[in-house]
Amino acid sequence: MKQSMTLTSLLNITHPIIQAGMAGATTPELVATISNEGGLGTIGAGYMSPEQLDDEIDKVISHTKKPFAVNLFVPENTTINEASITEMHHHLRDYYHKYKIDNPSINQHNTNHFNSMIDLIISKRVPIISFTFGIPEASIIQKLKAHHIKIIGSASSVHEAVICENAGIDIIVAQGYEAGGHRANFKTNTHIGLMSLIPQVVDEVSIPVIAAGGIMDKRGINAAIALGAAGVQMGTAFLTSYESKAPAVHKEAITASTEIDTTLTKAISGKEARGIKNQLIVNLEQYYEDILPYPYQNDLTSPFRKLAAQNNNAEDLHLWCGQTPRLAVINDAKNIFRSLI
Amino acid sequence: MKQSMTLTSLLNITHPIIQAGMAGATTPELVATISNEGGLGTIGAGYMSPEQLDDEIDKVISHTKKPFAVNLFVPENTTINEASITEMHHHLRDYYHKYKIDNPSINQHNTNHFNSMIDLIISKRVPIISFTFGIPEASIIQKLKAHHIKIIGSASSVHEAVICENAGIDIIVAQGYEAGGHRANFKTNTHIGLMSLIPQVVDEVSIPVIAAGGIMDKRGINAAIALGAAGVQMGTAFLTSYESKAPAVHKEAITASTEIDTTLTKAISGKEARGIKNQLIVNLEQYYEDILPYPYQNDLTSPFRKLAAQNNNAEDLHLWCGQTPRLAVINDAKNIFRSLI
Repeated sequence: MKQSMTLTSLLNITHPIIQAGMAGATTPELVATISNEGGLGTIGAGYMSPEQLDDEIDKVISHTKKPFAVNLFVPENTTINEASITEMHHHLRDYYHKYKIDNPSINQHNTNHFNSMIDLIISKRVPIISFTFGIPEASIIQKLKAHHIKIIGSASSVHEAVICENAGIDIIVAQGYEAGGHRANFKTNTHIGLMSLIPQVVDEVSIPVIAAGGIMDKRGINAAIALGAAGVQMGTAFLTSYESKAPAVHKEAITASTEIDTTLTKAISGKEARGIKNQLIVNLEQYYEDILPYPYQNDLTSPFRKLAAQNNNAEDLHLWCGQTPRLAVINDAKNIFRSLI
Repeated sequence: MKQSMTLTSLLNITHPIIQAGMAGATTPELVATISNEGGLGTIGAGYMSPEQLDDEIDKVISHTKKPFAVNLFVPENTTINEASITEMHHHLRDYYHKYKIDNPSINQHNTNHFNSMIDLIISKRVPIISFTFGIPEASIIQKLKAHHIKIIGSASSVHEAVICENAGIDIIVAQGYEAGGHRANFKTNTHIGLMSLIPQVVDEVSIPVIAAGGIMDKRGINAAIALGAAGVQMGTAFLTSYESKAPAVHKEAITASTEIDTTLTKAISGKEARGIKNQLIVNLEQYYEDILPYPYQNDLTSPFRKLAAQNNNAEDLHLWCGQTPRLAVINDAKNIFRSLI
């Protein structure tokens, strides 16, 4: 409870509930609703351009005066050769044909893009930033701190949590095995259930720890607090809100699923993520050895996945989902949030 | 809390804490200590003969007047051919050579043995029985119920929990992904984190649910209750007690480990189990395709593992352990138990 109060005063929010920054699925309406209700809404900017983020921040600010966060993916230095791209284009040819698109090229992934987003967040006076897939370099952390922006990091093990704390991160999201979407892992390739992860993390760090993964209702929140967490981050629970940008077939797939229907796969983006096992995952896992590293695999699959979403084809989509889909409901974000407090 | 009181009155115990029936690691002293302290001690009889169990029950009764349980493995009908045994003998030849033993033969695994254990439990008036690896046939459940023996089943998914309830089981242990030792899975090959598993199970069954997996202290117990569990079952926490029969090197390996050191493997027994990744697991996983089904793989590896234990060689042992080893302590079972209440 002491930790929980620290968290709410640190973030200037009422309830220690964070809406996860689900890249590609948040809308200004979702973010603003959660913040207006006293939680922390998060713009999932992982796949946005600086221009898109600029626009998104303006829209959120027009809907709320409360604090909100922006979530960014920390860029990695991975390399790729042309032959492996050609190979994956070949494996994906039926999808490109089905959706009538040319072989996609890989995107520019440069750190200038990331640095522009950081500067934008500072200039727009966004009060909180969260990072996934690691920690930015020290100069960026120093710059954010100089502007009094609170920094949330993500960890999937005690080791990663300690790295976050030592880097000057203010708050850690400890992500359990149950979590939907991308694994936050950046140093240890670990799958630790939340029941094990939280007490071990809180014993080793002195900054507030937020529990993430499989939490869908008051029971999960109370359990996380009992384990020593200062609050919770919830993704799947808000992904099925009316305000989320996830396609209707994705929301419906979640509410139609049970705890045994999700799987962890690298096949969709090149980075391990949890989603409902559909035909896309089954097909791509045939070529497991050829899966490109993140973000290149993502570049080659996202064009047809966007079209699949428009065509309501759940079998050709990424159906990110945590391990608790039986508790998901399709409803107003406000109603979902109010059921938690 | 209502469910929790139901559980304690159902089992006639004071605290809703069950010591897991860790086959090969329980002693009459451990079982009796937990029961005398107001929890439920469990004889891990999974690998015992009827004669050994008879003796073990007598010893427990000589140490406690409180209720205790016996845990049995439900036998399965798996078949095996000679060629695959020969193949595995070949893979294991260095271990047989190192420990100076002949190629072990596979054991007799007949249901007469299991039925004798059931009759023994009835004749000895053991008040509680727990089953792992499935549910015994209806006639056995009826016989146990006729003798007012309470039956605990194990489930790793909602589906399995519902099967248990429909079969007449009185109480379900819901085992999360975090759990050490063998997976309880019998119908669904699932790995569900406890944070996701418990609320989904309790919403679908009306009998008490006990949370198992990664729980090591009061925080875990309170979290399990918050999720809707009626109580907890703890294995690793008691495996490191002085009273446990686990070899000293096993206990020390647990307390020296962190959350990232365990893995799930079928290589040791033929059935998936979580343990600290040591040289034995690394070596055997080279022959993953040739691993025999349980219990045959177990038959071929247990003779040298017993000798490895006597020789304090942790690299040639099964080091079963859940995902929370940082919280393990080597202490009296009584002290460990009292720290939980």
